[in-house]
Amino acid sequence: MRGKFVTFEGCEGSGKSTQLRLLGEYLKESGADFLMTREPGGSAVSEEIREIILNPSNTEMCAECEALLYAAARIQHLKEIVEPALAAGKLVICDRYVDSSFAYQGAARGLGAEFIEDINSFALKNYPPDLTVFLDISPTAAFERKHGADKNDRIEALGLEFHEKVYKGYKSLLQKYPRIAAVDCGGTKYRTAENIKNLLRAKAIIK
Amino acid sequence: MRGKFVTFEGCEGSGKSTQLRLLGEYLKESGADFLMTREPGGSAVSEEIREIILNPSNTEMCAECEALLYAAARIQHLKEIVEPALAAGKLVICDRYVDSSFAYQGAARGLGAEFIEDINSFALKNYPPDLTVFLDISPTAAFERKHGADKNDRIEALGLEFHEKVYKGYKSLLQKYPRIAAVDCGGTKYRTAENIKNLLRAKAIIK
Repeated sequence: MRGKFVTFEGCEGSGKSTQLRLLGEYLKESGADFLMTREPGGSAVSEEIREIILNPSNTEMCAECEALLYAAARIQHLKEIVEPALAAGKLVICDRYVDSSFAYQGAARGLGAEFIEDINSFALKNYPPDLTVFLDISPTAAFERKHGADKNDRIEALGLEFHEKVYKGYKSLLQKYPRIAAVDCGGTKYRTAENIKNLLRAKAIIK
Repeated sequence: MRGKFVTFEGCEGSGKSTQLRLLGEYLKESGADFLMTREPGGSAVSEEIREIILNPSNTEMCAECEALLYAAARIQHLKEIVEPALAAGKLVICDRYVDSSFAYQGAARGLGAEFIEDINSFALKNYPPDLTVFLDISPTAAFERKHGADKNDRIEALGLEFHEKVYKGYKSLLQKYPRIAAVDCGGTKYRTAENIKNLLRAKAIIK
């Protein structure tokens, strides 16, 4: 049987990395057959693309170029990493996917949803997630919790106004796509981890 | 007045580089205000993308990823290099453009025209060339003339069958887009150079 494809989304500081680590530990302990991967990256070509995107000296990169690079890394990652794992029946959990492009480049950078749909048509048509988990915490609350943004990350260093636009973008995606479910993550990380497991159980992704 | 945008297309071995050099020399001598540039590349970000595309060790790169990387480099090159030159009234001559994506990835690699149109919608809508010069010589004739393909070039080394598909792709683009004009380049390089200048004069690109 083909595996399920679950993606995780959230703003900077939402605790996504921590939650994915905790979920990975839980799945490992419970003997699940799963693959944890991330965007952009996860394959050699995609990691090279990731380096260009995140290189802080690439200040002149236009928003359209950035969105196309994410789409290029995405499609390579889908074909090389995600597809073989799904075909082998694994549960594939991916850190970020098309919704990041909708929220970051479509909404926050102002490219619009249509441009993002156009350049991601292959991914949207062939690899729609079975479930998308959105870690719902506003950037203001998130940066307060982590005491400010990481200045060495070109995206994270963009400022609160940008990240609030990303958050609004995610909120409107929640209205548009029933596959996206919001998880409250205002509590402790263990509380959030329980919320995520409950959601995955309710959607019959895990037992 | 806004400058004109002229693109050059052709199969491997068509003599495109030689013709662009000869045209550049002519334009310089005649005092034209022009910019000669190329795809993929021409800007720092685009050159980084070009390196990933042409790296011979990236054998696992899928055709969709390749096409998206070309589209990403293209849009950056358009915004950073082509647009300012056109705005300054310069004649911009570009070595390869969207038609290369249609011929190489769309036709020869089999992605289809629709995929290429989707991911290049921004370029096609906002930067349609005023004229596209297609150097019309079949790969069979071209490789005969240059005594075989260059084995050190990942694209050129793909074999005659691939390049014949590219050539067929160009031929069908000629039917579809009136902006593309074929130039016979079966004669000497000086004869071809004259053919090109005559075309540019007929289209009021040069005097």
